[in-house]
Amino acid sequence: MPRFRIAIHIVPRQGLLDPQGKAVTDALHTLGFAAVHDVHVGRHLVIEADAADRAAAEQSARTMCEKLLANPITEDFSVASVSAA
Amino acid sequence: MPRFRIAIHIVPRQGLLDPQGKAVTDALHTLGFAAVHDVHVGRHLVIEADAADRAAAEQSARTMCEKLLANPITEDFSVASVSAA
Repeated sequence: MPRFRIAIHIVPRQGLLDPQGKAVTDALHTLGFAAVHDVHVGRHLVIEADAADRAAAEQSARTMCEKLLANPITEDFSVASVSAA
Repeated sequence: MPRFRIAIHIVPRQGLLDPQGKAVTDALHTLGFAAVHDVHVGRHLVIEADAADRAAAEQSARTMCEKLLANPITEDFSVASVSAA
Protein backbone atom coordinates (compact mmCIF):
# COMPACT_ATOMS: atom_id res chain seq x y z
CA MET A 1 0.00 0.00 0.00
CA PRO A 2 1.26 3.50 -0.70
CA ARG A 3 2.29 5.68 2.19
CA PHE A 4 0.77 9.10 2.86
CA ARG A 5 1.73 12.04 5.02
CA ILE A 6 -1.36 13.61 6.59
CA ALA A 7 -1.15 17.00 8.31
CA ILE A 8 -3.79 17.77 10.94
CA HIS A 9 -4.61 20.95 12.82
CA ILE A 10 -6.30 20.69 16.21
CA VAL A 11 -7.41 24.01 17.67
CA PRO A 12 -9.42 25.16 20.69
CA ARG A 13 -13.07 25.44 19.72
CA GLN A 14 -14.12 28.98 18.75
CA GLY A 15 -15.57 30.86 21.70
CA LEU A 16 -13.98 28.67 24.35
CA LEU A 17 -11.25 30.06 26.56
CA ASP A 18 -7.76 29.64 25.13
CA PRO A 19 -5.54 30.38 28.15
CA GLN A 20 -2.35 29.39 26.31
CA GLY A 21 -3.18 31.79 23.48
CA LYS A 22 -3.92 34.55 25.97
CA ALA A 23 -0.60 33.94 27.73
CA VAL A 24 1.29 34.12 24.43
CA THR A 25 -0.52 37.34 23.46
CA ASP A 26 0.46 38.93 26.78
CA ALA A 27 4.06 37.77 26.45
CA LEU A 28 4.29 39.21 22.92
CA HIS A 29 2.94 42.54 24.17
CA THR A 30 5.53 42.56 26.95
CA LEU A 31 8.24 41.99 24.33
CA GLY A 32 7.01 45.01 22.39
CA PHE A 33 4.86 43.39 19.68
CA ALA A 34 2.02 45.85 20.24
CA ALA A 35 0.40 45.12 16.85
CA VAL A 36 -0.65 41.62 17.97
CA HIS A 37 -4.37 41.37 18.69
CA ASP A 38 -4.94 37.71 19.29
CA VAL A 39 -3.13 34.38 19.30
CA HIS A 40 -4.61 30.90 19.14
CA VAL A 41 -2.44 27.94 20.07
CA GLY A 42 -3.30 24.52 18.76
CA ARG A 43 -1.50 21.36 17.73
CA HIS A 44 -0.01 20.45 14.38
CA LEU A 45 0.28 16.71 13.81
CA VAL A 46 1.91 14.96 10.90
CA ILE A 47 0.94 11.30 10.56
CA GLU A 48 2.70 8.92 8.21
CA ALA A 49 0.50 5.95 7.42
CA ASP A 50 -0.20 3.38 4.72
CA ALA A 51 -3.55 3.61 2.96
CA ALA A 52 -5.18 2.40 -0.23
CA ASP A 53 -5.54 5.93 -1.58
CA ARG A 54 -5.67 9.58 -0.59
CA ALA A 55 -9.34 9.49 0.45
CA ALA A 56 -8.78 6.44 2.66
CA ALA A 57 -5.79 8.16 4.28
CA GLU A 58 -7.86 11.24 5.10
CA GLN A 59 -10.75 9.17 6.44
CA SER A 60 -8.39 7.17 8.61
CA ALA A 61 -6.86 10.36 10.03
CA ARG A 62 -10.33 11.71 10.82
CA THR A 63 -11.14 8.54 12.72
CA MET A 64 -7.88 8.86 14.69
CA CYS A 65 -8.82 12.43 15.65
CA GLU A 66 -12.27 11.35 16.80
CA LYS A 67 -10.97 8.38 18.81
CA LEU A 68 -7.78 9.76 20.32
CA LEU A 69 -6.16 12.92 19.07
CA ALA A 70 -8.76 15.65 19.56
CA ASN A 71 -10.91 16.38 22.59
CA PRO A 72 -14.46 16.42 21.15
CA ILE A 73 -15.68 18.76 23.90
CA THR A 74 -13.13 21.52 23.59
CA GLU A 75 -11.33 21.15 20.27
CA ASP A 76 -11.95 21.25 16.54
CA PHE A 77 -9.76 19.43 14.05
CA SER A 78 -9.18 19.74 10.34
CA VAL A 79 -7.12 17.79 7.84
CA ALA A 80 -4.76 20.40 6.41
CA SER A 81 -3.15 18.28 3.70
CA VAL A 82 -2.65 14.74 2.46
CA SER A 83 0.43 14.06 0.34
CA ALA A 84 2.32 11.02 -0.85
CA ALA A 85 5.18 10.28 1.57
CA MET B 1 -3.04 49.38 9.19
CA PRO B 2 -4.64 46.25 7.73
CA ARG B 3 -4.92 43.17 9.88
CA PHE B 4 -3.43 39.82 8.91
CA ARG B 5 -3.89 36.28 10.12
CA ILE B 6 -0.57 34.44 10.16
CA ALA B 7 -0.46 30.65 10.64
CA ILE B 8 2.76 29.19 12.00
CA HIS B 9 3.92 25.60 12.40
CA ILE B 10 6.49 24.80 15.06
CA VAL B 11 7.81 21.24 14.95
CA PRO B 12 10.51 19.25 16.74
CA ARG B 13 13.74 19.49 14.76
CA GLN B 14 14.30 16.55 12.39
CA GLY B 15 16.44 13.88 13.99
CA LEU B 16 15.74 14.95 17.55
CA LEU B 17 13.67 12.76 19.83
CA ASP B 18 9.94 13.45 19.67
CA PRO B 19 8.62 11.64 22.75
CA GLN B 20 5.09 13.02 22.32
CA GLY B 21 4.98 11.77 18.73
CA LYS B 22 6.26 8.37 19.86
CA ALA B 23 3.59 8.18 22.56
CA VAL B 24 0.85 9.03 20.06
CA THR B 25 2.16 6.42 17.60
CA ASP B 26 2.07 3.76 20.33
CA ALA B 27 -1.43 4.78 21.42
CA LEU B 28 -2.71 4.60 17.83
CA HIS B 29 -1.21 1.12 17.45
CA THR B 30 -2.93 0.05 20.67
CA LEU B 31 -6.23 1.32 19.26
CA GLY B 32 -5.75 -0.81 16.15
CA PHE B 33 -4.35 1.73 13.68
CA ALA B 34 -1.59 -0.63 12.55
CA ALA B 35 -0.94 1.27 9.30
CA VAL B 36 0.53 4.23 11.18
CA HIS B 37 4.33 4.42 10.89
CA ASP B 38 5.22 7.69 12.49
CA VAL B 39 3.64 10.73 14.12
CA HIS B 40 5.18 14.14 14.73
CA VAL B 41 3.52 16.48 17.16
CA GLY B 42 4.14 20.19 16.90
CA ARG B 43 2.29 23.42 17.54
CA HIS B 44 -0.03 25.32 15.25
CA LEU B 45 -0.29 29.02 16.08
CA VAL B 46 -2.57 31.57 14.49
CA ILE B 47 -1.56 35.16 15.15
CA GLU B 48 -3.79 38.10 14.31
CA ALA B 49 -1.75 41.27 14.00
CA ASP B 50 -1.71 44.61 12.22
CA ALA B 51 1.00 45.15 9.63
CA ALA B 52 1.73 47.44 6.71
CA ASP B 53 1.54 44.59 4.21
CA ARG B 54 1.76 40.84 3.85
CA ALA B 55 5.58 40.75 3.79
CA ALA B 56 5.81 42.86 6.95
CA ALA B 57 3.31 40.56 8.68
CA GLU B 58 5.36 37.49 7.81
CA GLN B 59 8.62 39.12 8.89
CA SER B 60 7.04 40.17 12.18
CA ALA B 61 5.82 36.61 12.81
CA ARG B 62 9.30 35.23 12.11
CA THR B 63 10.77 37.63 14.66
CA MET B 64 8.17 36.51 17.22
CA CYS B 65 9.17 32.88 16.62
CA GLU B 66 12.85 33.68 17.06
CA LYS B 67 12.31 35.73 20.22
CA LEU B 68 9.59 33.78 22.02
CA LEU B 69 7.54 31.14 20.28
CA ALA B 70 10.04 28.53 19.08
CA ASN B 71 12.89 26.95 20.97
CA PRO B 72 15.90 27.58 18.69
CA ILE B 73 17.74 24.52 20.02
CA THR B 74 15.08 21.89 19.51
CA GLU B 75 12.44 23.26 17.16
CA ASP B 76 11.99 24.45 13.59
CA PHE B 77 9.27 26.87 12.58
CA SER B 78 7.67 27.80 9.30
CA VAL B 79 5.09 30.37 8.27
CA ALA B 80 2.30 28.27 6.78
CA SER B 81 0.11 31.09 5.50
CA VAL B 82 -0.55 34.82 5.70
CA SER B 83 -4.06 36.00 4.89
CA ALA B 84 -6.06 39.18 5.36
CA ALA B 85 -8.09 38.93 8.59
